[in-house]
Amino acid sequence: MPLEFDPIAEAHRQWLARWPEHAEHMAAVTSVMRVQQMLIGEIDRVLKPYGLTFASYEALRLLAFTRSGELPMGKIGERLMVHPASVTNTVDKLERAGMVRRRPAAEDRRRVLATITPDGRELVEKATAALNAADFALDGVDKATAMALTALLRKVRERGNDFDAGAHDPWAS
Amino acid sequence: MPLEFDPIAEAHRQWLARWPEHAEHMAAVTSVMRVQQMLIGEIDRVLKPYGLTFASYEALRLLAFTRSGELPMGKIGERLMVHPASVTNTVDKLERAGMVRRRPAAEDRRRVLATITPDGRELVEKATAALNAADFALDGVDKATAMALTALLRKVRERGNDFDAGAHDPWAS
Repeated sequence: MPLEFDPIAEAHRQWLARWPEHAEHMAAVTSVMRVQQMLIGEIDRVLKPYGLTFASYEALRLLAFTRSGELPMGKIGERLMVHPASVTNTVDKLERAGMVRRRPAAEDRRRVLATITPDGRELVEKATAALNAADFALDGVDKATAMALTALLRKVRERGNDFDAGAHDPWAS
Repeated sequence: MPLEFDPIAEAHRQWLARWPEHAEHMAAVTSVMRVQQMLIGEIDRVLKPYGLTFASYEALRLLAFTRSGELPMGKIGERLMVHPASVTNTVDKLERAGMVRRRPAAEDRRRVLATITPDGRELVEKATAALNAADFALDGVDKATAMALTALLRKVRERGNDFDAGAHDPWAS
């Protein structure tokens, strides 16, 4: 059931009356949080038939994109911006389901690699098809809006030091 | 440590090569998820000295904005887009800390109201000042970018039926 009013617009009015200098930042951050809640709920529904969450989907997708199908655990955490404990937890579940295997790195046996299995590859392609079919829960949002959103969020990510801002920007015009 | 490249730009390239029709939606959704992770980490750090998470802060802030300082539990969940079990959990913690009290509604004693206490009011004003001082973890992002982000995310929220799109839009130009 949709609300009868926009709760963020309401909070924005409250801020404008009290702390006008901070109203725009409050509204933007609250909007990110709220949209994330909406999207993650819908995406988890799409992924449920595949036994995946968005976090485990992302780990599998990342492994499937690599040449060798494997990555050190630490690299997975860095790339997905996830704490080491969460990577362990995610890879544990994927391993129990037979979607990845762990092995010690040949050069340094203390380093553990996660490897995607053939079942994992099959699953991630099916899950990707399902997410694509649902337009990643953004159905009804046009491409131009999606591109504009990515570009704006990239600005926020640059300020937050998510990645080296000198890196090639495929959306730069 | 920032990554040496933008992992979303990298995923976008992979999508363009395989599923170009869905690349923009994937990038936008992944960007929302990643920015939410960045922001929630920073916001929780700002709120920690006050014993609050963003969820409990939002509940307190909402109560403090009402005329009477109280709302039915169900309304809090609707407004904050949170499951009833999470509202119960959040209000439990706030009640133990002395920041809210619960009481049965006079007209229908099965309905429970949460009421902010004087300590709760004091705390929420301090926490709000801290969040404002940190620009809600968006420091370095200018106002125009914040406003554009809110407006774009509002489009996504309308499509997702977050609220009645006929409602007054303070950002409409």
